[in-house]
Amino acid sequence: MATVTCFITLSLACLHVTALKSQLFTRLGDLSYSSEPPITYETFYFNQKIDHFGFLEDGTFKQRYLVADKHWQQPDGPILFYTGNEGDITWFCNNTGFMWEIAEDLGAMLVFAEHRYYGESLPFGQDSYSDSKHLNYLTSEQALADFAVLIQSLKSKMPESPVISVGGSYGGMLSAWLRMKYPNVVVGALAASAPIWQFPRMVGCGDFYKIVTQDFAKSGQNCAANIRSSWKAINNISSTASGLQWLSEEFSLCSPLKAKTDAVVFKSWLQETWVNLAMVDYPYEASFLQPLPAWPIQVVCKHLTFDSKVSDYDLLHGVSQAAKVYYNYTGSSSCLNTSQTATSSLGALGWTYQACTEMVMPMCTDGVQDMFEPEDWSFQAFSDECYGMFGIRPREDWAGTLYGGKDISSHSNIIFSNGGLDPWSSGGVTYNITDSLVSIMIPDGAHHLDLRYSTSLDPPSVRSARALELKYFQEWIEKAKTRSGQTGSENQL
Amino acid sequence: MATVTCFITLSLACLHVTALKSQLFTRLGDLSYSSEPPITYETFYFNQKIDHFGFLEDGTFKQRYLVADKHWQQPDGPILFYTGNEGDITWFCNNTGFMWEIAEDLGAMLVFAEHRYYGESLPFGQDSYSDSKHLNYLTSEQALADFAVLIQSLKSKMPESPVISVGGSYGGMLSAWLRMKYPNVVVGALAASAPIWQFPRMVGCGDFYKIVTQDFAKSGQNCAANIRSSWKAINNISSTASGLQWLSEEFSLCSPLKAKTDAVVFKSWLQETWVNLAMVDYPYEASFLQPLPAWPIQVVCKHLTFDSKVSDYDLLHGVSQAAKVYYNYTGSSSCLNTSQTATSSLGALGWTYQACTEMVMPMCTDGVQDMFEPEDWSFQAFSDECYGMFGIRPREDWAGTLYGGKDISSHSNIIFSNGGLDPWSSGGVTYNITDSLVSIMIPDGAHHLDLRYSTSLDPPSVRSARALELKYFQEWIEKAKTRSGQTGSENQL
Repeated sequence: MATVTCFITLSLACLHVTALKSQLFTRLGDLSYSSEPPITYETFYFNQKIDHFGFLEDGTFKQRYLVADKHWQQPDGPILFYTGNEGDITWFCNNTGFMWEIAEDLGAMLVFAEHRYYGESLPFGQDSYSDSKHLNYLTSEQALADFAVLIQSLKSKMPESPVISVGGSYGGMLSAWLRMKYPNVVVGALAASAPIWQFPRMVGCGDFYKIVTQDFAKSGQNCAANIRSSWKAINNISSTASGLQWLSEEFSLCSPLKAKTDAVVFKSWLQETWVNLAMVDYPYEASFLQPLPAWPIQVVCKHLTFDSKVSDYDLLHGVSQAAKVYYNYTGSSSCLNTSQTATSSLGALGWTYQACTEMVMPMCTDGVQDMFEPEDWSFQAFSDECYGMFGIRPREDWAGTLYGGKDISSHSNIIFSNGGLDPWSSGGVTYNITDSLVSIMIPDGAHHLDLRYSTSLDPPSVRSARALELKYFQEWIEKAKTRSGQTGSENQL
Repeated sequence: MATVTCFITLSLACLHVTALKSQLFTRLGDLSYSSEPPITYETFYFNQKIDHFGFLEDGTFKQRYLVADKHWQQPDGPILFYTGNEGDITWFCNNTGFMWEIAEDLGAMLVFAEHRYYGESLPFGQDSYSDSKHLNYLTSEQALADFAVLIQSLKSKMPESPVISVGGSYGGMLSAWLRMKYPNVVVGALAASAPIWQFPRMVGCGDFYKIVTQDFAKSGQNCAANIRSSWKAINNISSTASGLQWLSEEFSLCSPLKAKTDAVVFKSWLQETWVNLAMVDYPYEASFLQPLPAWPIQVVCKHLTFDSKVSDYDLLHGVSQAAKVYYNYTGSSSCLNTSQTATSSLGALGWTYQACTEMVMPMCTDGVQDMFEPEDWSFQAFSDECYGMFGIRPREDWAGTLYGGKDISSHSNIIFSNGGLDPWSSGGVTYNITDSLVSIMIPDGAHHLDLRYSTSLDPPSVRSARALELKYFQEWIEKAKTRSGQTGSENQL
């Protein structure tokens, strides 16, 4: 079972477990946007309780947060508060152009708060990841409590400023959940590409990979079909030592494949490559996980147009050319590293821990509706792997109970934006639940395209999305200002 | 400082810290209602995680809950879910007549869930209170998570039954908070006499004792004034050994006062007696803390009608007669026990722990607007006492951040009922916040009178309150049934 192998070895991005992790962490590379303006912010540190939900552990740690107040209009200009994901907050700060671009319009202060256990916000310093005892305070509830306490502290200094939370991906989930759990601290939330329903029994476990497959199917003739055929070709060729050597050379692997188990790792790495491409299938040249051309899947698919009569070797030559679009677009890579999409940074381990506790996101493939090797979802196998790694077990239904699952209609003022190309839209809110719990679909958008800096190549759908998001922000701010000072009436009997 | 003394000795009900505790725990005595019908229920136990918010502690304990399904109409009759307070759940089950009386009208199932660390629901059995390590999971958040998980389990068997939470006092706070934090599990909540605003900086710390004083002031000529004078009289008389002996005999104390510090304890006991009377100032004879006559404060005040010219001895004779209305109405007590209103049960210790962690409820007196000896509120002194007792410190602002303080307007479907005679109405929601966050005032009601069995002596205000509560329940149930099956629309750009 690939899932087990993957978890036990921890040597590589784990197909069914760490897809979200890889999606977020592989972005932590070296990024640059030619179009982005210079941004400036100040860095602060806030003393947070290590444990908000118990009183025995009364220690504190320094949570990092960044503040940009250049456009803030005293005394009641709003605060846009980014709910940090599982990574270094400066990276999210630099890559959420939407907030920087609307700050002036809104007269807003920008705050980017780092998520505990990531970046510099380590509850136990270098020991934070030393064992499951130190990891015990790495939960989304603790992170939300950090955000709420920090916002209350900001509000004590700026009581008239309404606060809006913003986040993408896991940060988008946190943004929505912050509004759900602490509506006293934020008047509304933007949850961009936030798969809040990617939990057990909420959506089909195969939906994610179906979307990846659709992206490839519509980006080039035979493209998805050839990738579907490639796994068997790899199995055939990797069954001999000479085949393994051929594969290693064909793909210019930095570490040659030596055993059959290496082929399993190799296939996972390829699978994750296709997933990553689906997430970053942006309409313009960009450096995200890697420097990539505009509409990178179309470019990838140009190497995979042949029909089914092709030999295993010819097929895999096409696949290697396709992979190199992703890993060597600039031609500067001397070899491909199959451990590249799963960094061994603290962050990756942190997300694996979160997936092994609350963030249970079932994934499966069937090879028919998707282009991957069939693999069932088994909670028990997943749980056993987590136990082997951390000595703890995930709780299958807890996130659903805690965050409401599909029954969230009593909440308000949350925008769920989703990209039609983004596989994570499988777990997103893709329809309006109420008038104030709205979904914005961006059919030709990949993973939280709306949060990125605007460019001249942006499709109309993402421009409209951003305009609508801004309109909701303005409404919430207006309403918050009208409401303050109102009092209620009495029901005297 | 009385607060400090009180906390260090733990020998007696603590004036400023444990008023809520005493209010709830002293009710755990022997109760009987002549008017109450026989009730039957089944007892069940549910495996709950000891720690919902961390994964290192993966143990479980058995949470007790009681079920009465005699009137339940399959398959979609509602469930009325009592969110247990800090005590034995069978007691709350037996004393929430309102639920039993409306079950048939609604075709409802009744569920009474015990709060962790009370009654039989002890996370670590007999060790649960052994130290602050074992007490670490005694928080309102953990209790709410218990309720949410239990309800989700019930819903998995009865998916069509809308659930409404009901509670009084601390149980009422939990009922409201359950709807706020887990609106996916309950469609609405009745929070009877729930002082959700009795936290720092939300209401005046003296409001509670002002209401106690008003109850006495309007129940008899000179009544509050004479109690106000009594403290100095006690101070005067207790300054000598013979005075202490006189006091002990006059009040028929089981344990004679021997030192000046005993007089401090004695005064706290008296103060708590007046507080308890204010809470149970019901319009009919009832056995609550003690067997009492109808409108007991009026009866008490008959002994305190003299004007200010009276001697210390005569004044305190009146006070002793008044106290005996409370402690010896039936004439069966051979002596009065000054440790009586603070039981040394686990429950009392549990509430003290909760007050020393999250449930920081500032109380103060000034002797002018109230009839008590002046005493300021000092968070620091309170914190130091807690640290001395448990090795932990309270967090002054946490409850406000967690539960929203006065900014709860985005929630829905909560009824806050309050009695005008009830001192806890000082921290209650006494005005409508929105159309679905409503307050019901019962001017001539004491502590959650509306939750008690109906009697022929009920004032019209409590009858109207119960009728209105039932009407809201019916509306919520109706809406929940209409809503199921509806789907949303898409915002395609």
